[in-house]
Parts: sequence; C-alpha cells; structure tokens
Amino acid sequence: MEIDDLIGSQCRRDWERTEATAVPAVRVAAIGLGWFTRGRALPALADSARCEPTVLVSGSTTKADRIASEFDAVERTLTYEEYAEGVGTDAYDAVYVCTPNAYHLDHATVAAEHGKHVLCEKPIERDSDRAADLVTVCDDAGVELMVAYRMHTEPTVRRAKEVIKAGYVGEPVTVRGDMSQRLLERVNPDPDQWRLDAELAGGGALFDIGLYPLNTARFLLDADPVAVTGTTGSTHDAFDAVEETVSCSLRFPGGITATCFASHNARQASSITVTGTEGQVRIEPAFFQDQDRRVELSRGDSHAEIQVDRVDQIREEFDYFADRLRSDADIYPDGRHGVVDVEIMEAVYEAADRDTWVEV
Amino acid sequence: MEIDDLIGSQCRRDWERTEATAVPAVRVAAIGLGWFTRGRALPALADSARCEPTVLVSGSTTKADRIASEFDAVERTLTYEEYAEGVGTDAYDAVYVCTPNAYHLDHATVAAEHGKHVLCEKPIERDSDRAADLVTVCDDAGVELMVAYRMHTEPTVRRAKEVIKAGYVGEPVTVRGDMSQRLLERVNPDPDQWRLDAELAGGGALFDIGLYPLNTARFLLDADPVAVTGTTGSTHDAFDAVEETVSCSLRFPGGITATCFASHNARQASSITVTGTEGQVRIEPAFFQDQDRRVELSRGDSHAEIQVDRVDQIREEFDYFADRLRSDADIYPDGRHGVVDVEIMEAVYEAADRDTWVEV
Repeated sequence: MEIDDLIGSQCRRDWERTEATAVPAVRVAAIGLGWFTRGRALPALADSARCEPTVLVSGSTTKADRIASEFDAVERTLTYEEYAEGVGTDAYDAVYVCTPNAYHLDHATVAAEHGKHVLCEKPIERDSDRAADLVTVCDDAGVELMVAYRMHTEPTVRRAKEVIKAGYVGEPVTVRGDMSQRLLERVNPDPDQWRLDAELAGGGALFDIGLYPLNTARFLLDADPVAVTGTTGSTHDAFDAVEETVSCSLRFPGGITATCFASHNARQASSITVTGTEGQVRIEPAFFQDQDRRVELSRGDSHAEIQVDRVDQIREEFDYFADRLRSDADIYPDGRHGVVDVEIMEAVYEAADRDTWVEV
Repeated sequence: MEIDDLIGSQCRRDWERTEATAVPAVRVAAIGLGWFTRGRALPALADSARCEPTVLVSGSTTKADRIASEFDAVERTLTYEEYAEGVGTDAYDAVYVCTPNAYHLDHATVAAEHGKHVLCEKPIERDSDRAADLVTVCDDAGVELMVAYRMHTEPTVRRAKEVIKAGYVGEPVTVRGDMSQRLLERVNPDPDQWRLDAELAGGGALFDIGLYPLNTARFLLDADPVAVTGTTGSTHDAFDAVEETVSCSLRFPGGITATCFASHNARQASSITVTGTEGQVRIEPAFFQDQDRRVELSRGDSHAEIQVDRVDQIREEFDYFADRLRSDADIYPDGRHGVVDVEIMEAVYEAADRDTWVEV
C-alpha cells in the first residue's frame, strides 16, 4: 500500500463502480419512521447524490406527513396497508427496512412481490429461520438484498482490512472487539421499547450492538467462525427477556480466535483490534456514529495513530447499495452474509445456555 | 481521589509500611542465574535501598563467579548442592527463586528448612498440587512466601485499581487483557528452552505471559473467577507440548466477565482495560518492562491519556517484599493467591480440552 492509501485519502470510495452522475438515482421508500430513520437515514438519503427518499411508510399518517414536510424529495407517504397493497410502487425502486427485527421478513416480502430491491437493517431478522426465508423471498423474486452493516463502507474499517490483507500485521492471530452503551440511562429510558422484547428483537445486546464487533471481525478476517461460546447476563429488571450484556469467544479457521463484548449497561465505548504475528491494527472509537475515527497501527519499531475525518456512515452505506443496484458488482453484505450472523448469535446463546462451545 | 493521586504522583509507594533507612536490608540469595536474574533481578536488588543480593546459587560455579564479580554486594556463590546442605545460610535472609517452574517447590523447601523467606517467580509451580505443597512447606516452617507478580506494585496498575475502587468507572462490567510476543523469533530462538517443556513449565503462553492479564484482572477487580473457558493453539512445531496461543474467558461474581489473550506468536503487545457502567480505564502498554506506561481514563464527557514515568518494576517488587518482611503487614500475592492462578489456568486447559466451561 502507498502511504496515501492510509494517510491522506483514507476516506476514498474504493468500492464505487459507477459514476453517480452517470446512473439514475435510486428512489428509496423508507419503511418505519423511528428515530434512526428520521434522524440518520433520511438526512443521509437527502444528502446522497445516488439516492433520494421518495416515499415514507409508517403506521401514523400524521407522523409520516410531518416528516415528509422536512424532506423535499419525498413524493408521498403510505400506511403499511397501502404499502402491502402496492400503492405508489411507481414512486420507489427500493425499500429501506428499519423496523423491529421481527417485521423485516414481512416488509421485505412485500417489496419482493412488487419487484423492489431491499436494504434491510441489521440483524436481518429475529431468528435464522425467518432470516433464511427473507433471503429466499428476495432470491425468488429476483430483487437485490443487502443488509445494512455500516462498517463495510466505513473508511477506517476498509483501510484496516487492506492493511491486514497486505500483510502489514503478518498472520492474524486474534481479534477483539467491543461495543457498549447505557441504553436505558443514555439512549432510551422506555422499558417497553422493542429492543427489550425477545419476540420483536430476537436477542439483546448481542443482536443490537454486539453484532458490530462480531460482523466486523468476520469482515476484517474475511472468514467466518467455526465454533463459539459465550456468557450473557443482566442487572436491570427491564432486561428480563433479552440479555443486557454478552461476552463471546469465537474460533476462526487456522486457529485465529476472537472475543466480542457488548453491553447495554456499560460506558459508551467501541473498538476493534486485530493482532497479528508482525503487527497490530486497531480502530477506536469504532462503531458509534458521529465520532472522529482513529486508526492505530503498530509494526516493527513504530506505532502510528491516524486521525480520520468523519464520513456520514449511513450515506456511504446507501450509496454503496445504490452503486451495486446500478452496476453488476456483487453486494458484499448480501442476505446469506446476514443469515450467518444470526446463526452465529444463536450459537452464542445456545453455548451460554449449555456452558459449552457450539459449532457454527 | 485528588488529581495529584492520578496526575503528579502516580509513582508514589503507597504500599510502604516501613522507612527503608529504619529497618535492616533484606539479604537475598538468588536461585537460578538465567537472563532474567542477571539482567533484571540482580540490578534491581543492587539498586534497592531495602535489599541486597548477597548470595548467588547456580549449577555453574564459573557462571556464578563471573556474575558475582559484577555486583559488589555478593558475598558468595553456592552450587545447588551447597544450597541444599545449608552452606552459607548466615549470608542471606530470603531467597528469590527464578528457575523453571517445576523446580520452585524443591528450592522453596530448602529455604523453608533453613528458615529463609521465599520470593518465588510466577507461576508458583507447574501444577496446583505442587503449588499447594509449596504453600504448606512455607506455612509449616513459618517463613513468608510471596509470588513475584510485578503488577501489584506497578504504579499504573495500583492507580487503576484505586480509580475503580473509588467508583470512577461505576460498577465494573468487563475486563479484557492481553499479552503477546514472538518468543522464538524475538526473545529466544532455542527450541529446547524450558518454557516449551510441559514438565518444567506446566503450560505455554498462558503460564508464561497469559498470567499477567489473568492475575491483573483478579487484582483490579479484587475478585476471583468462578468459571472459565478457553481455546489453545499452536502453529510452530516447537510448541507441540505446550500451547503457543491461548484465549480464555472468565466469569467473575456479580456477572462481571473478562477475556484474556496471550500468544508467543503475535506482535509484542500488552494492555488491560476495565469497562464499567460509567467509565473505562485502560493501561497500555501494560505488562512488558522498559516501556513508558500510559493510563487512559474515559468518563462523562472526557477522555484522559496520562503518560507515567517508568519505574523499575523488579525493584518495586523486591522492595515490597522487603517492606513486608520488616513490618507486620500482610503480603497480598501470598502463596494461596498464587495457587489460585494455577488452579484457574488448569481449569482453562480442561475447558479447552472439553469444549466447555469449568467452574473454579
């Protein structure tokens, strides 16, 4: 790698296959108007040169109309019933599904029926059976399916992967990653939020945030774990159905190990570190948005700390999706990729239950 | 805590119970003259105001005499036979045992027979049975026994413990620690070194360096794990009898988890991080000597990086030992404390063998 690849143009979009001005913008229907869609996704879509938010789907017409008035590109709003019936399908090319996990399958099924491509929030579904069904539905309909992992287009993560692939840390030996926040105290105090509901979410800290270090470890190593174990725990009454805290260990092929920690009851923190025979690369902070990124690279006699400008991770993710729809390049985080994460997470829960290791 | 306790006088010896000038120096017989004794322990003893290296015990009289000439305080050298027979016992008050792990019991038994106190390198022995015997031997003889964990008197570790105890990270939720180096490539290329011999060492990376994050996690949390699991692996032929790399997970009381990674085949790195409900404290680099220490403390709206002057960790450790011998204060890392580490490490190996969790 040239120095400029790591220091100077970290934020380059090496994944782009098309010119934004040479292809039609992808018109996106946003399904679910929670805080993330409103505060993150719609502004990113509005800012994107490759996408535009043309349709809003919500259970509340009042809410949808209010939010629609904030974004010029929005052409219409739909109720879930109208969406299911195929109203307004000429106004969008793809859907962005940002609802409780257990609703992903139903919304993707509707999209597939109408020939619309699907960008589905992570995790792909609440369990691996429904996740597999979601993949099948999209495959059968011939629509593209991508799972919305922000990290695959986060520049620091892409550069870290290149550093590893180029051999700068030697042979990878271990990965450790973590993500934590105080969900109830700092993010959302509502004890009835869907993230605490096992039926809707599928799991707790692991499904919601542990997926970041877990999936990023897979991405950085370009490999999937073969066995996992874990420990789950909760201290708050609100976390009676899903775990508040999880710690899991993973065995990858070739003897590489990884550990991931996630908690909804620990100080906000996030990092991922790959240690190899010859060096170490770390991203910290790693997974939360709106934080200046730092990449650390240790090798030989040197330790470098590289500050990297922020990008709008959601815009990058949408633009990658749009670029893939407008080119013939494969989507990296496709449906099958997303199913594997759910299978791994289910194995972690099983391992924690049985105090054992579980093969994946 | 006052700011000065963390920034300004990090290296204070808060553990001192006696004035160095008010008590007799402890005359130490060094058992085993490997590179660590010669390069680290003897210079530290020579530099100490509380100890002096008066006797050297070695299988090679030539080597012992040569090294003796480098240190003014050395009064005599002994062969192992002379040591066992009690020759020169009037020249030392305590022994420092720095031999392959499996010889610790025999050397400590001789010391106990002669009424000499014992500072024993970590791990205390190659297995928990011999470790327990070593404790009994010293107890029965009424001599003091300390295991040589450098971290209990490393200033950054003590300050981190105080920060945690004072509640600055809230309730601890998880600890992660690691230590790695390329033993064969960077430290000692000899495939016949005792660290690779299961009979002499008891274990591989875990016994040799994984013990640092493991024991420091116990120290920082002031608690012992209740269950463990792990994964071991090797890539070099030289690591056929003991593991080259280990990754272990620990469950502490109260739902606190910890992960420790150690490898003799990964880039030199070491760190320990405690994440709590309100903050995070990290020491990095943590465990290797001769590196400038850095403590990071994140809490509330702030992240602090505190560079700390180096101390001679071995001198601090010897001085703590001497201070405890000259006062009636208890030794923190006593024999029983050392046995617990060996029991934990044996449980990790059993867990790795059986792909399960093992209660400790």
